Amino acid sequence: MRAVDIIMKKRNKECLTEEEIAFFIDGYTKGSIPDYQMSALTMAIYFNGMTDEEATYLTKAMLHSGDVLDLTGIEGVKVDKHSTGGVGDKTSLVVASLVASLGIRFAKMSGRGLGHTGGTLDKLESIPGYSISLSEEEFIRQVNSIGLALVGQTADLAPADKKLYALRDVTATVESIPLIASSIMSKKLASGADVICLDVKVGSGAFMKDLESAGKLAKLMVEIGKSFHKNMTAVLTNMDEPLGYAVGNALEVMEAIDTLNGKGPKDFTELCLEISSHLVLDAKKADTIEQARKLCIRQIENKEALHTLAKLVKAQGGDERYIYNPSLFKIAPYSIEVCSLKNGYIGHIDALEVGNVAMRLGAGRAKIGDQIDHSVGVVLRKKVGDYVKKGEPLAVMVANTNEIEEEKNRLIHSFTIQDEQVYPKLILKVMK
Amino acid sequence: MRAVDIIMKKRNKECLTEEEIAFFIDGYTKGSIPDYQMSALTMAIYFNGMTDEEATYLTKAMLHSGDVLDLTGIEGVKVDKHSTGGVGDKTSLVVASLVASLGIRFAKMSGRGLGHTGGTLDKLESIPGYSISLSEEEFIRQVNSIGLALVGQTADLAPADKKLYALRDVTATVESIPLIASSIMSKKLASGADVICLDVKVGSGAFMKDLESAGKLAKLMVEIGKSFHKNMTAVLTNMDEPLGYAVGNALEVMEAIDTLNGKGPKDFTELCLEISSHLVLDAKKADTIEQARKLCIRQIENKEALHTLAKLVKAQGGDERYIYNPSLFKIAPYSIEVCSLKNGYIGHIDALEVGNVAMRLGAGRAKIGDQIDHSVGVVLRKKVGDYVKKGEPLAVMVANTNEIEEEKNRLIHSFTIQDEQVYPKLILKVMK
Repeated sequence: MRAVDIIMKKRNKECLTEEEIAFFIDGYTKGSIPDYQMSALTMAIYFNGMTDEEATYLTKAMLHSGDVLDLTGIEGVKVDKHSTGGVGDKTSLVVASLVASLGIRFAKMSGRGLGHTGGTLDKLESIPGYSISLSEEEFIRQVNSIGLALVGQTADLAPADKKLYALRDVTATVESIPLIASSIMSKKLASGADVICLDVKVGSGAFMKDLESAGKLAKLMVEIGKSFHKNMTAVLTNMDEPLGYAVGNALEVMEAIDTLNGKGPKDFTELCLEISSHLVLDAKKADTIEQARKLCIRQIENKEALHTLAKLVKAQGGDERYIYNPSLFKIAPYSIEVCSLKNGYIGHIDALEVGNVAMRLGAGRAKIGDQIDHSVGVVLRKKVGDYVKKGEPLAVMVANTNEIEEEKNRLIHSFTIQDEQVYPKLILKVMK
Repeated sequence: MRAVDIIMKKRNKECLTEEEIAFFIDGYTKGSIPDYQMSALTMAIYFNGMTDEEATYLTKAMLHSGDVLDLTGIEGVKVDKHSTGGVGDKTSLVVASLVASLGIRFAKMSGRGLGHTGGTLDKLESIPGYSISLSEEEFIRQVNSIGLALVGQTADLAPADKKLYALRDVTATVESIPLIASSIMSKKLASGADVICLDVKVGSGAFMKDLESAGKLAKLMVEIGKSFHKNMTAVLTNMDEPLGYAVGNALEVMEAIDTLNGKGPKDFTELCLEISSHLVLDAKKADTIEQARKLCIRQIENKEALHTLAKLVKAQGGDERYIYNPSLFKIAPYSIEVCSLKNGYIGHIDALEVGNVAMRLGAGRAKIGDQIDHSVGVVLRKKVGDYVKKGEPLAVMVANTNEIEEEKNRLIHSFTIQDEQVYPKLILKVMK
């Protein structure tokens, strides 16, 4: 088998066999197939796509390029969730606490990656003492004892995907549905959960700009997961504005705590309940989605979910007093308001731009190795559909300096203010 | 400027600017843009094409990646020809001799490359003593004194193309018209001639399988050449069978000598006259193509073209007695006939397969560094349109062994024998 023939086959819109895909990924992982052949193949895939079977073979090949977590040491059904990436997305903190409080095992191992506002691990590190470093053994022991763990990746999960993703990033081949699906699913499958809920973001602030392409991606990931005997759900959710009000690490953890206290933003609370309900249903802790939802609401009302978050923080070395008293969180000293220039309804908030502002304030990483400042960020005062008067605040920047004219300007222009009121819909579609 | 943005732009079917293309080629030549970004770009070009302007910018960037021959030291109009590659193609030997015998300067510097049956330089090296190594100064002096030179590349002509071609070869991005056109034209333009005639092969034995794509390639190359103020002609010629009868180095030189003696194969003689006539016309040595053709025929009849070939061979250290007495050429000892299995007309001869047989006998290079055996090859006995009886010879293999059952089998199957007679047309189209 020769790499160039496989590239040519895909270039000519033919289907690749399982053996051909395995040969290519295996060779690429080991270095016998060079980057320049892989980038030619991915560009051909960008143009000619892949069938569901090919994408499944690709996922399988990447999954088996490294370690596959063995969670059989954890009793009962193991669940996991994954978001394709949104601004203000602190959902994992709430969902993990909610479902674990119902006795469902939530065992999540994440990478860090780049981003506007760090990932779940960065958010958790806003809490002094919280350690993301657990050995695989400690990880399994903790999930068995308190029902959940949120840790950094120790095992070498899907190294082919890691290498390939870095290559796609510099060769303009990121935006390909089969490549995105196999990238996400190879990592998820390597993490070993039985039940997986995918939160596929749709809109200007997301990777998938429209419902059709997001639906294709979601369907493909669900099919791939099913072919590996996983219980799959994909929820397509609106990302035409940031999720909730808070964007930034400590600010988002505080909002997650508010939500577990029943005082969270409407949209964010709704999303957490939706995803948690599917996990509860799929883990067979409820017979219907309505019943599952009721259980989740109960766990907020009786504070069991909040206590579970506190247990998680304590188990991983963090100061759990922060969970019960969020005013302990260190927040940057300057609060700079950004006010509306006119009267009207908020029609749209450019989530990516809000994320960029937060990153420029220090909340995220522009490149690997950048330090994150957990204390900064943006807090929205208005959401899509709200009415705002001229001079009324649209958002607040929480910063370490007040010399942030450019960020102020960017933030103000990320709001679209119009005469007609819009009624945003958060949950766009559910696919099983 | 970032390479990834340029790749993305082409991927999204946008046009690249002259600056973007120059940035990419310059960075690639210097090594600051890696192979994997170049292969992603070329695959995107494979799918989305290039405008004539973009292809011209690409040619220009590759042309200026290395040396450009300065032929101003040669008096008068300098002409050159180029073939996109055929089997049995010894045209340069005859054309160079013909036009130089009319006082037109033919200054050709070639690379070697791979191929079924070597290139022009390999063919010339069948003549003992012939040296392809001339300094640039010697090259110019020789063209001024005897009117022609056929030498190996000393200058670093279009190194970007060399690097890019090797990459395209292993990433399935060879078959792209703008990439082929800019590859050929960057080298041709770097060689410094004023008048260029391109022989674009069409058919099963050529790169371009159909007249439409060959026409596109020819038109683009003519346009590129014109934009550099060159006097351009492209001749589209049939490659549904090998050119002439001989395939192999010494065998082809002998056939070229026959042709200069007025005893060449009909198709090959016709092609040489066609290309030579255009060069003579474009070099202003004749007022009409008919007049140019008459001049060329005269130079064969009066043996002036043959004498010019002898002068070339002598000037470059070769034994010119071979030109006047081709029986001196060393030919391999075994002549193995391949005979027809049935009666009928020859409908088609798979030129690539005939070329492969010649290569397997030792006439060509499968990889860089392979040694060429000048004494072997294939001589056809029948051409397309001929009638053959069962048991009559179709071709002869000239070899160093008679244990060549597989080659025999391949050669016999490269002939299609049918009931209907076909009348092949050699010159399909001329574009100026």
